[in-house]
Amino acid sequence: MKNKSVKAFAPASVANMSCGFDVMGMALDGVGDTVEVSMSEGDGIKIENKSDVSLPTDVEKNVITPAVRAFMQALGKKAMVEVTVLKKILPGSGIGSSAASSAAAVVALNALCDYPFSPEKLVEFAMEGECLISGTRHADNVAPAILGGVVFMRGYEPLDMVKLPVPEHFWCTVVHPHITVNTADARAVLPKEIPMRKAVTQWGNVGGLVAGFAMGDMDLIARSMVDVVVEPYRKGFIPEYDDLKEKLAMAGAMASNISGSGPSVFAVSQSKEKAHLLSEVMRRHFDALGIKNDVYVSHVMPHGARVVE
Amino acid sequence: MKNKSVKAFAPASVANMSCGFDVMGMALDGVGDTVEVSMSEGDGIKIENKSDVSLPTDVEKNVITPAVRAFMQALGKKAMVEVTVLKKILPGSGIGSSAASSAAAVVALNALCDYPFSPEKLVEFAMEGECLISGTRHADNVAPAILGGVVFMRGYEPLDMVKLPVPEHFWCTVVHPHITVNTADARAVLPKEIPMRKAVTQWGNVGGLVAGFAMGDMDLIARSMVDVVVEPYRKGFIPEYDDLKEKLAMAGAMASNISGSGPSVFAVSQSKEKAHLLSEVMRRHFDALGIKNDVYVSHVMPHGARVVE
Repeated sequence: MKNKSVKAFAPASVANMSCGFDVMGMALDGVGDTVEVSMSEGDGIKIENKSDVSLPTDVEKNVITPAVRAFMQALGKKAMVEVTVLKKILPGSGIGSSAASSAAAVVALNALCDYPFSPEKLVEFAMEGECLISGTRHADNVAPAILGGVVFMRGYEPLDMVKLPVPEHFWCTVVHPHITVNTADARAVLPKEIPMRKAVTQWGNVGGLVAGFAMGDMDLIARSMVDVVVEPYRKGFIPEYDDLKEKLAMAGAMASNISGSGPSVFAVSQSKEKAHLLSEVMRRHFDALGIKNDVYVSHVMPHGARVVE
Repeated sequence: MKNKSVKAFAPASVANMSCGFDVMGMALDGVGDTVEVSMSEGDGIKIENKSDVSLPTDVEKNVITPAVRAFMQALGKKAMVEVTVLKKILPGSGIGSSAASSAAAVVALNALCDYPFSPEKLVEFAMEGECLISGTRHADNVAPAILGGVVFMRGYEPLDMVKLPVPEHFWCTVVHPHITVNTADARAVLPKEIPMRKAVTQWGNVGGLVAGFAMGDMDLIARSMVDVVVEPYRKGFIPEYDDLKEKLAMAGAMASNISGSGPSVFAVSQSKEKAHLLSEVMRRHFDALGIKNDVYVSHVMPHGARVVE
């Protein structure tokens, strides 16, 4: 076995996209994780962190580990897999930091092994990493991280994904305030049961959002980006959330919501200029609260994780 | 005011279309209601039933009345409106019999008054008829009855409808077993709260169904026609429902489910031959149970209610 290595990049992503809790996500352009993977004789996983952010030193606690194990098990071969994390989105950001690492790792592994698996299969492997941190197998970050674009997950048994077209003038602005929201806590705050009326409202919006993307209707997309089920419970994690949302709407955001389980917040607009204006609104909001923050202005990344260099 | 009259036909429709409870419906081809409307000086509503089915003789109990009143109120004029019901789907069939009457009435009125209102506005008037019988304002029958095709209701406040494209080879077979399921009873049997996990499964299927229509993917449509929220509660109204569903699947139905609040059952297939085969399965099922039944084989009607003759 050659000890060659492959480097891959996987984009950050916005899960849920408002109403699509657990079933929808989109890949961001220009922000993500880069990992390098090599294989040698032996059996096991080593993860080295050369990024600027701290990661678990115990491989059993790193999301990359279950993803790599799922890949190797499906491959039916034993090897010592060495993963080096080169660049990393801040963990706990709510823009799919763990998903990007798992996605980049399995995409690099797949290239290293001459592409034995389809992108769809790689999503399943990367989902194992998500299970480690949140306790549930969900693909709303790993699917866009690997497939790119806007991905809708019809169902999980079996995993059934639909990549939706994205309007040309769809811009996304994301702010990551440096506060800690644990994914498991963000799930625990949700009710186990929801009123039927709210569920109907939610699936009306989910269908509208899907129709908006599929039919290229930005207004329909914006009207559908309403979440009556999850946002009311999770917004409490984000300081002055209602105020931020109102300021974004005043500044021309077509819609805004929590990215994944937060604390990142995203806003949608139809031009680069507007998207940058919204980034200023976001930055000022958290600056005024004394909360350090990163702001990204992004298109939807049309393709997902890929080999780099 | 001239005492001319206008006759209109409105198609029957399948509401919910499986997972899309209260947000989706499709118009059937070749089956529906025909009404004739005339206006003269005065103020009030008269409804005459010249169809073969019995209807409430009290105008206050006829679904046409609130629809006509909503129309006249928006028009801001007083008149004596006389409605004659000429042909009628059996009430309580679950294929939008009340919606077809209301739809035909407002479409005829609109033509009589030289088209003051948009089809979307007519849907709102016709919804008042639905409210009379079920207690809720829903458009999943009246919207397809008026607009035709497959209509998705993103939301109700305000009413926000999306007409979806329909694949060419989409066939629908519908059976109406002559048993009574009251719409209000069919609503009362549903839980007021549903588990979050089931809600997520449902909106995954709703989004998949919308994507399937919007992107012309029959397999995706069929995979998405799964209802974990309503069907389990309502199937008890239909004798040997699980057995029928299994027989339809064995005979090649891509999907089957309850039409609206039942007792009609619909099945989806990709050819006329298959659609007719499924109609035989349906007929034999209810014949064997000694239940009189009507069977329809239909395309989706691309246009909705229209003036006839």
